Amino acid sequence: MEKTAGKPIRCRAAVCRAAGEALVIEEIEVAAPKSYEVRIKALCTSLCHSDVTFWKMPSSPMSIFPRIFGHEAVGVVESVGENVTDVNEGEIVVPVFFANCEDCRDCKSKKSNVCTGFGFSPTQGMPGDGTSRSTDSSGETVHNFFGVSSFSEYTVVDIAQVAKISPEIPIDKACLLSCGVSTGVGAAWKVADVEEGSIVAIFGLGAVGLAVAEGARIRRASKIIGVDLNPEKFEIGKQFGLTDFINPKDCGEKPVSEVIKEMTDGGADYCFECIGLASVMNDAFTSCRGGWGKTIILGVEMHGAPLNIDTYDLLRGKRIEGSFFGGIKAKTDIPLLVQSYLNKELHLDGFITHEIGFEEINAAFDLLIQGKSLRCIIWMKK
Amino acid sequence: MEKTAGKPIRCRAAVCRAAGEALVIEEIEVAAPKSYEVRIKALCTSLCHSDVTFWKMPSSPMSIFPRIFGHEAVGVVESVGENVTDVNEGEIVVPVFFANCEDCRDCKSKKSNVCTGFGFSPTQGMPGDGTSRSTDSSGETVHNFFGVSSFSEYTVVDIAQVAKISPEIPIDKACLLSCGVSTGVGAAWKVADVEEGSIVAIFGLGAVGLAVAEGARIRRASKIIGVDLNPEKFEIGKQFGLTDFINPKDCGEKPVSEVIKEMTDGGADYCFECIGLASVMNDAFTSCRGGWGKTIILGVEMHGAPLNIDTYDLLRGKRIEGSFFGGIKAKTDIPLLVQSYLNKELHLDGFITHEIGFEEINAAFDLLIQGKSLRCIIWMKK
Repeated sequence: MEKTAGKPIRCRAAVCRAAGEALVIEEIEVAAPKSYEVRIKALCTSLCHSDVTFWKMPSSPMSIFPRIFGHEAVGVVESVGENVTDVNEGEIVVPVFFANCEDCRDCKSKKSNVCTGFGFSPTQGMPGDGTSRSTDSSGETVHNFFGVSSFSEYTVVDIAQVAKISPEIPIDKACLLSCGVSTGVGAAWKVADVEEGSIVAIFGLGAVGLAVAEGARIRRASKIIGVDLNPEKFEIGKQFGLTDFINPKDCGEKPVSEVIKEMTDGGADYCFECIGLASVMNDAFTSCRGGWGKTIILGVEMHGAPLNIDTYDLLRGKRIEGSFFGGIKAKTDIPLLVQSYLNKELHLDGFITHEIGFEEINAAFDLLIQGKSLRCIIWMKK
Repeated sequence: MEKTAGKPIRCRAAVCRAAGEALVIEEIEVAAPKSYEVRIKALCTSLCHSDVTFWKMPSSPMSIFPRIFGHEAVGVVESVGENVTDVNEGEIVVPVFFANCEDCRDCKSKKSNVCTGFGFSPTQGMPGDGTSRSTDSSGETVHNFFGVSSFSEYTVVDIAQVAKISPEIPIDKACLLSCGVSTGVGAAWKVADVEEGSIVAIFGLGAVGLAVAEGARIRRASKIIGVDLNPEKFEIGKQFGLTDFINPKDCGEKPVSEVIKEMTDGGADYCFECIGLASVMNDAFTSCRGGWGKTIILGVEMHGAPLNIDTYDLLRGKRIEGSFFGGIKAKTDIPLLVQSYLNKELHLDGFITHEIGFEEINAAFDLLIQGKSLRCIIWMKK
C-alpha cells in the first residue's frame, strides 16, 4: 500500500479562479478517497471543448469557481477507498465524465449508456455526496468538474467513472479514449452501427468528428464526407478515412444538404452533427436519405436552441438519435477500443497534434480555441 | 379469361365533384389495365382519415376534382395487363397506397419500406404514367387517389401496389389490412420492435392507435397506455390490450408527459403519435424515457408544422423515427398479418364498428368524422 493511502495529498493543480481567466498552478490538498472512490495520480491529461465551454461560461448556475477543469486523462491508481474491489493500487485507469455503475437498468441494457444509477449533471461534484475532494491553500473548496477534475496531479474519482485498461497502450493514446475520440468512434460503431459500403457525412471535423470518420473507416464505409469551414481539415481527415470534403463557404447559394444529396444519389445513410448548433443539426437531418437515413447528434447545442425538423421527412423513414459519449459504456467499451488500437486497427496517433508540460496548460486552451489542435497532450511530468 | 378482359368496364363509382361535397354514385368507365397493372373488382372498401383529409381539402395543388377516393379495400383480380406475372385473374388481393416494387434498393433492404422505385405523392395518378383509368359519362377524367381509388366497383392498380393474400381470411378483415390496421401493427412490430415487458404509450386512439396497442399486446408489452380526449376509448381499447388510459382533459395543469413519467418510473420505452399534430409529437417525445426511449411518428402533421425537440433529450439517448404504413412492405408483410389473424393471434374483429352498403357511403364519412367509428366496412354488394 502506498504510504500516502488514507491521507490527504498536497500536490499541484491548475485552478481556474474566474470564468475565462487563465488557469493558475497552485498547491492544493486532495482528500483521501471515500467509499467507492479511487485516488488517481494523473500521468497526462488533455483539453476537450466541454472544458472550454464551462471555463468561459460567465454567469450561470453551472458556472462555479474556483474549479479544477479537465475530464480527459489517464492515470495510475494511488489508493482506493472502501468497497472498491475492481481496481487496485498501481493499475492504469482512464477516468470518464459519464458514469457506468454496471448495476442500474440502463447499465445492464445493451440499448443504453445513460447510467441512471448516477445520472449526469454538469454541476455535480463527486457523485457520492456532491462535494469536492480538493481544497486550496487557504482551505477553500476547489470545485469539481464532471466528477473528474483531471487538471491536477492527483484527483479522486468515483469507481463508476473509472475504466481499467491494459498497460500495453501508450498512455498518451489512452488519454484520447477518455472522452472525445471514444465519443466519435462509439457513435459510428454503437449508435449508428455503420455498415460496410455505407455513406457517412460528418458535420464538424474536430477530434470528435474525425473520430467518427475513423470509426466509419474501420467499418469500411464507402464514402466519408466531411463538412467544415476550415479547408485544412480535408488533408487532416484523410488519415482517418475522409474521402470527400465540403466547405459550406464554397457552396454559394446551394444548401450543403443539396450538395450532399447530389453527391450521394439522394442522401447519406448516416449524418453526424459534431458541433452543437441546431441549424447544423437540421442540415444533417436534411442531408440524410429517406428510408433509413439516420442523423446522430453528438454536439451539445451551444445556445440551448431546440431542433426543428420536418415531420414529413420523419414519415419518409428518416431517424434521429443523439448520444452523450457515443453510446460508450466506459468499463466494457474503453478496453475494447484499447484492444483495437493494440491490434493496429484504430488509428490514434494523428489525433495528437501537440504536447506540452503541465505548467504550459493555458497554451492548450489557445490552441483548441484557435482551431490549431485536435488534441494537445498535457504531460503532468514532461 | 374474363370476357371483360382487355376492354373498358362500365360500373358504379362514388365520385367526389368538389371538396367537402357528398360523394355521388355515378356510372363511370374504367379502362383496361396497362402494362404492369391489374384491374380489381372491389368486394369491400373502408374509409381512412387520409381520405377525409384530402376530401375536405379546399384549395391546394393536392386538391383535384372530380376524384374517386378510397384506398382501403379488398378485391378479386378481374384481369391483368401485360408483364403481370405474380397475380392472376380470380385471386384475392389487397390494394395499397404505398408501393412495393421489390426491385429498388429500398425494397431490397430490410431497413426501409419507402419504395424509391415508385415514390409516393398524394397527387400522383397511376404510377406508370401519372394518369387515371377512370372517365365519367361525359368522358371527363375522374382523378385517381393514391393510385388506388377504391370507392368504385372496379379500379386499376399498379402491380407494385397489390398484395396477394390467402382467400381463407374473411374479406372484411382483409380490408382492414389495406392501410390503417397494418400501419399500427407494423409500427409496433417493425418500426419500434416492441419487446416483451416494455412500456408503450399511444397518443390518439383511432384505428391506427388501437392497432399499435394490438401489436404491442401480441408482443407482450407490460403496460400499454392510451391517450385520447374521448373517454370511451379506454373500454374500446381494452380488447386490444390497453392497460391504462389518460384523458388530457383530466390532467389539469399537469402535462401528459409528466403523468406518463410518474406512471412509468421515468418514461415509456416507446411512444407513438397517431394524430398528426406537432405539439402532440413533442408530448410523445417528452414522455419517453432517456437511454433508449423511442418516439414513432405515424400521424401526418395536419398543418405542415415542424416538430420542435429538445436536443439535450436527444443526447440523453432518446430517439425519434417516423413511418408511412408502419414500416410495412405490402407484398411480404400483409400476407404475414393475414396469417397472424388466421392463427388467432391478431385481433381484427373489434376494428369493424359499422357495415353499410356502397350506396350509403357518405354515412361512413359522418361516422368517422364524428369519432363514432373505427372502421366502417362498405360492401360493394350488400
